[in-house]
Amino acid sequence: MRSDIPPNHPRFISLQTRAHLVDGFQRGLVASEGLIAHGRGEAFDYLMGEQTSKFSFSAIEAACSCLLIAKRPVVSVNGNFAALCSTEIVKLSNLIPARIEINLFHRSSERERLINQELENKGAKNCLGSFSNESAIVPGLTSSRKFVHSNGIYMADVIMLAMEDGDRTQALVDMGKKVIALDINPMSRTAKTADITIVDNVIRVMPIMINTITALKREKGIDYLKNTINQFGNRRNLANSLKAIVNGLEKQSNSE
Amino acid sequence: MRSDIPPNHPRFISLQTRAHLVDGFQRGLVASEGLIAHGRGEAFDYLMGEQTSKFSFSAIEAACSCLLIAKRPVVSVNGNFAALCSTEIVKLSNLIPARIEINLFHRSSERERLINQELENKGAKNCLGSFSNESAIVPGLTSSRKFVHSNGIYMADVIMLAMEDGDRTQALVDMGKKVIALDINPMSRTAKTADITIVDNVIRVMPIMINTITALKREKGIDYLKNTINQFGNRRNLANSLKAIVNGLEKQSNSE
Repeated sequence: MRSDIPPNHPRFISLQTRAHLVDGFQRGLVASEGLIAHGRGEAFDYLMGEQTSKFSFSAIEAACSCLLIAKRPVVSVNGNFAALCSTEIVKLSNLIPARIEINLFHRSSERERLINQELENKGAKNCLGSFSNESAIVPGLTSSRKFVHSNGIYMADVIMLAMEDGDRTQALVDMGKKVIALDINPMSRTAKTADITIVDNVIRVMPIMINTITALKREKGIDYLKNTINQFGNRRNLANSLKAIVNGLEKQSNSE
Repeated sequence: MRSDIPPNHPRFISLQTRAHLVDGFQRGLVASEGLIAHGRGEAFDYLMGEQTSKFSFSAIEAACSCLLIAKRPVVSVNGNFAALCSTEIVKLSNLIPARIEINLFHRSSERERLINQELENKGAKNCLGSFSNESAIVPGLTSSRKFVHSNGIYMADVIMLAMEDGDRTQALVDMGKKVIALDINPMSRTAKTADITIVDNVIRVMPIMINTITALKREKGIDYLKNTINQFGNRRNLANSLKAIVNGLEKQSNSE
């Protein structure tokens, strides 16, 4: 992995994250389409000032409450998510606890195998995926994108997913699943379709989620969790996140 | 090339373009950095509503006028531009007529060779590049990024470039070249440094340029071309393009 980024570079974390992703690409975890998707994310993160907003913190608390209340929570993992956050994914899923399902948009059994290995290296056990030959079909999706695991996403009541395609998010919501999305674009179909959207960079979100879940489990009861979920409104959350981007651009526009 | 994108997907063209670029990457035309850069471009296109603005049409007319008036126009081609627009690059350069120079930021002679082959397959003849052993040096640039062709960019009066690095654009302007930039980020250094910046997606720009050049050659005289160039102001163009992004976002923001 590249280590020649000076730590005092103003965009050090962003460049380091990019290097992590390219490393994941070279190790076969990330699809080439995943590099492009990451570039898109970089642009949105840049427009947001590369920091976690207060709206994101609220969405994270609602998401963590939802995951703790869930009966069959599943964390859906794709190549980019695994390349950037494998340690945190395993930690979070152990804390909740939730099953991990490897669920790729650009499906390849080799890539699934490598992602599974990566997660197992970080301590994951029994990750689900189409490699385990227990596939069920998500209604409304065509091609190989419709396959999920019969004991994982198919049976889940709450699914947390990151950087997911709009069609697939919609199909899961149509199945009656409660969907938590990590998506840095507040206008994406996934962001709008999900029940709770965390409009933020997964790199910053995952450690905060781990701390939040830990604190909620230790300090709060079921009523607090339910109340947190009830008070959260995703439309308002998305509108506020979008306003943060607009304000940043207006500042640029006025300085021209 | 991948053909499993459903044509009814709401972002079909963007996904198809992405697949074209990945295809170019697999064929060795595009650098892995080019994939991430494309993703950043996608985000800006998304913010613009993935359509050509009236400001873009004005910039295109000024750019075409400038290319027709030029004495030694050169179209500079990098990996992403070749992967997405090789047919249109050849058509446009034949129409003007202009020389094509392959000029890479992440230089590799193998990639240059493949891009040259790709352009020749589309009908290009005598493309310039550092493979032709006639290199000159752009003052102010270090490393292999400083090399251009002595009969191409080095001697050109007007250079059209796409998705170019800010340092290199600045160096060409400092040499007294008139620079036309295709750059979808109106805040980039290239966008701000160029004489005429077309703030738009190359996929949409190139066919419009071909039609515009054809119409201008058939219908308009030198006075019309000069007048079009004189009436164009790039600072106003960039400010308007940025406002178009902000307005689009505000509309989205208010409709939430």
